[in-house]
Amino acid sequence: MDINAVNALSYEDFLEIFGNVVEKCPIIPAAVWIHRPFTSLADIEAHISDFIDSLPESGKEGILRCHPDLAGRELQSGALTRDSQEEQRAAGFTDLQPSEVSRMRSLNSEYKERFGFPFVICARLNTKRDIMRELLQCLGNDPAAERARAIGEVKKICALRMRNLQLSNSPNKL
Amino acid sequence: MDINAVNALSYEDFLEIFGNVVEKCPIIPAAVWIHRPFTSLADIEAHISDFIDSLPESGKEGILRCHPDLAGRELQSGALTRDSQEEQRAAGFTDLQPSEVSRMRSLNSEYKERFGFPFVICARLNTKRDIMRELLQCLGNDPAAERARAIGEVKKICALRMRNLQLSNSPNKL
Repeated sequence: MDINAVNALSYEDFLEIFGNVVEKCPIIPAAVWIHRPFTSLADIEAHISDFIDSLPESGKEGILRCHPDLAGRELQSGALTRDSQEEQRAAGFTDLQPSEVSRMRSLNSEYKERFGFPFVICARLNTKRDIMRELLQCLGNDPAAERARAIGEVKKICALRMRNLQLSNSPNKL
Repeated sequence: MDINAVNALSYEDFLEIFGNVVEKCPIIPAAVWIHRPFTSLADIEAHISDFIDSLPESGKEGILRCHPDLAGRELQSGALTRDSQEEQRAAGFTDLQPSEVSRMRSLNSEYKERFGFPFVICARLNTKRDIMRELLQCLGNDPAAERARAIGEVKKICALRMRNLQLSNSPNKL
């Protein structure tokens, strides 16, 4: 499926494929569908980025709150989206020692208490060790700067999910 | 659970309860959670309404595209959210004659072809007969007026979902 095929999709089929490129926010690909014809997958990503930037700050925080904790209760209970499950596995969070689980729980709680949203980072681009270090460091950030950093990570996650869609299809698909 | 109890909820527990008051758009309650303390459920609804109004037009259309067709393939296949399933049942769409299913399919297709989003109406406030009449009439609307009408229906659906949450708990809850 090349970009012409993407451009020919109904919004329903478009959402079937791109609905979770931003975690639990199908409204975002549903909004950018209107910008067809897209010139490339990168063009879709750019429209998603612009749409996120157009949201009020509360909406950006809303996106962050739709994300699960890293190594949190949804990972333990198997309630993650497939995308998140694979990302957390890639970073090593499905294979933690009990002491590491406990450490992550504690850091996540402290972070959420401080910022009112979960710590979001592109898990595919980091190891669990990097992530724990970064989380600790971010606890000292100013809230507005931290929100901006986290939204930057949402966009990285989106870009990798889109590439993953591409890879999970045959070379002629997407 | 009175409004003080709602105000004491973590964003995670708030989303557990209010996450689908706008169909498949948890970003919306996740965004308005920041406005605690709420004075009442009506105050939460007002913040949701304001948030929706603050979205770019593409975002409002994005909300509409997160809604299923009435009497569509998701109803037939059992893939609706529980909220939508109950609403479509209330309007009589779970008990259609084959000729009515076929008529709805045809009207839905014509509508989506014209507007690029599905026909949205508060099913709990209408019978299937009213809805089919309204759908037919709306096909003649100007696209901007039709988007505005549909967003008004999203807000009515949200209000009834919130009251339903209230009813589905004990008198001391919500």
